Amino acid sequence: MDILRIAGGIRPLDSDAQKKARARQDNLTKPRGSLGRLEDLSIQLAGIYRTDSPHVRKKVIFTIAADHGICAEGVSAYPSEVTAQMILNFARGGAAINVLGRHVGAEIITVDIGVAGDHAWPSSVVSSNVRKGTRNMAKEQAMTAGEAEAAISIGIDLATSAASRGANLIGIGDMGIGNTTSATALTAVFTGNPISKLTGRGTGLDDAGLQRKINVIEEVIRFHRPDPAKPLDVLQRVGGLEIAGMAGVILGAASAGVPVVLDGFISSSSALVAAGIAPQTKPYMIASHRSVEIGHTAILEYLGLEPLFDLRMRLGEGTGAALAMNFIEASCKLLDEMATFDSAGVSKKEGE
Amino acid sequence: MDILRIAGGIRPLDSDAQKKARARQDNLTKPRGSLGRLEDLSIQLAGIYRTDSPHVRKKVIFTIAADHGICAEGVSAYPSEVTAQMILNFARGGAAINVLGRHVGAEIITVDIGVAGDHAWPSSVVSSNVRKGTRNMAKEQAMTAGEAEAAISIGIDLATSAASRGANLIGIGDMGIGNTTSATALTAVFTGNPISKLTGRGTGLDDAGLQRKINVIEEVIRFHRPDPAKPLDVLQRVGGLEIAGMAGVILGAASAGVPVVLDGFISSSSALVAAGIAPQTKPYMIASHRSVEIGHTAILEYLGLEPLFDLRMRLGEGTGAALAMNFIEASCKLLDEMATFDSAGVSKKEGE
Repeated sequence: MDILRIAGGIRPLDSDAQKKARARQDNLTKPRGSLGRLEDLSIQLAGIYRTDSPHVRKKVIFTIAADHGICAEGVSAYPSEVTAQMILNFARGGAAINVLGRHVGAEIITVDIGVAGDHAWPSSVVSSNVRKGTRNMAKEQAMTAGEAEAAISIGIDLATSAASRGANLIGIGDMGIGNTTSATALTAVFTGNPISKLTGRGTGLDDAGLQRKINVIEEVIRFHRPDPAKPLDVLQRVGGLEIAGMAGVILGAASAGVPVVLDGFISSSSALVAAGIAPQTKPYMIASHRSVEIGHTAILEYLGLEPLFDLRMRLGEGTGAALAMNFIEASCKLLDEMATFDSAGVSKKEGE
Repeated sequence: MDILRIAGGIRPLDSDAQKKARARQDNLTKPRGSLGRLEDLSIQLAGIYRTDSPHVRKKVIFTIAADHGICAEGVSAYPSEVTAQMILNFARGGAAINVLGRHVGAEIITVDIGVAGDHAWPSSVVSSNVRKGTRNMAKEQAMTAGEAEAAISIGIDLATSAASRGANLIGIGDMGIGNTTSATALTAVFTGNPISKLTGRGTGLDDAGLQRKINVIEEVIRFHRPDPAKPLDVLQRVGGLEIAGMAGVILGAASAGVPVVLDGFISSSSALVAAGIAPQTKPYMIASHRSVEIGHTAILEYLGLEPLFDLRMRLGEGTGAALAMNFIEASCKLLDEMATFDSAGVSKKEGE
């Protein structure tokens, strides 16, 4: 099966390249370690790119959209039509992710992987609709096994074909009314935390709406009893098509030797699925920001990832990933362009 | 006196422009508040620029260098010559701040305001040497009143002339071996925290060096007994020439209606001085990052500033300010370029 073949091809990072990059960092004109996590980032990228001189050449963000049958249970403050309306907004360049993509020089690729309704999208939208929204997971499995695997395969293809066109930094983002409900269910299953500690307000639920959402997710978990040792089965039961697609992007990017920048809660829930299928994807992940959505922190802790910033964002689309790309690119430029103590004639610390 | 005249010309932010900017934010195609602090930043800039459509046009960072007589007491892991050596590194474009300046599109202006020794700098360096390093503040006042005021005036002139050349986002950074000692003394005086809770390792002191530094600063404070109600006197006794210069940049920028991006511990200690002289500078300040230097957090709390990120940096030079400029610019572009619900035909939240 395609997914297992791809997972099997993911290599550990190149520790020799990382050692050489660390040695260079330690000889740049600054106190050792004074660039903090920017130094660590450059060394992670050295290991992924398998060179002590990592360069970000081309940045792509996949904003993957799908609808959610669970919306029938009243879990979102916005109507489902917004998913499709936002695809048109992405296509016209008017959404936050478009602005930030232009700002950081990243190409934004919008993908319909499971939007409800009949649509003829502008040609800039990738039309890879697996089905018109998931089924209502309160009553049945969200997807069939075939649908889940199809969505993952689409993500893998998106990533590997972007890599073959030169993209070497890939971000993932989501659009899908109702998808925090799926992300919360996935987080509960994989991290083992109680649902009431993971459930947030999504795009803007009030107190009564939040309690209803918690009740719905608890009912979903009781109904399906998903087994975290079977990540594809978990995804199929309580996941979303965009979440499956993003998990595929992670698998494809890692297999192509490309780091993946996570966005917020939804994209990170796809990282739980990807790490469940292939734990060797984890060193390829970079957490961009910490979302306001409380479940996000549980995922980051579970995956051992530390976000680069916390601007109290909760938008999705890949917006946090876009901003983080600026830091990631900076980390490589610092390693590459800074003078060394010797070349600049700067005295070292006493004793070094 | 020039400094008081400048301080008197600093206006409160334009609350009408801020209200209009908030109204526009609330109608952009995203859940209200979902861009978190990026929304707040855009509204701060609307108030500073006095328009509901704020734009960052030209970004300048002043990296201001000086030496410190207190180094005679063995408070730094690096020799004082490094200050001058780093100026040449800045002039050649090989330091971290040069790399980050190019990365974010900010002009880096290096200023010798008080470097020790005789130097003929390259023409790109602003030569405004007030004196060849401060006196040893363990034994006498670091500067005379005239020297402190001269250094502040230089900073004011740097900022106002940059503003007149079109700069509308100004960052400040430092270079000065020994300057964390001055910054710690200033922080202790203005915030009232105990020195042992404010003193960090600077560029890399070991445990014994750290204890020596704490002892030296405690002795300095006992000797001078600075009065926080007299900020110019405090600066003169225990400050540094680059700190005075950066305080001047803050005063000058605020008087010209330009926001100032603070860097780490040293530049933020200059913000204590500027806020002491003119509290109305505070709304013009933007904290970029939280430094590893423990005294920095005390300053941020005292000034009521929340940094935008924490990458465990402790380099100075303006490096954190440079990275933050990317977020600040993004916040304005989002406000300006995003579609509204009406223009994009996107449904609003139920009930709005």
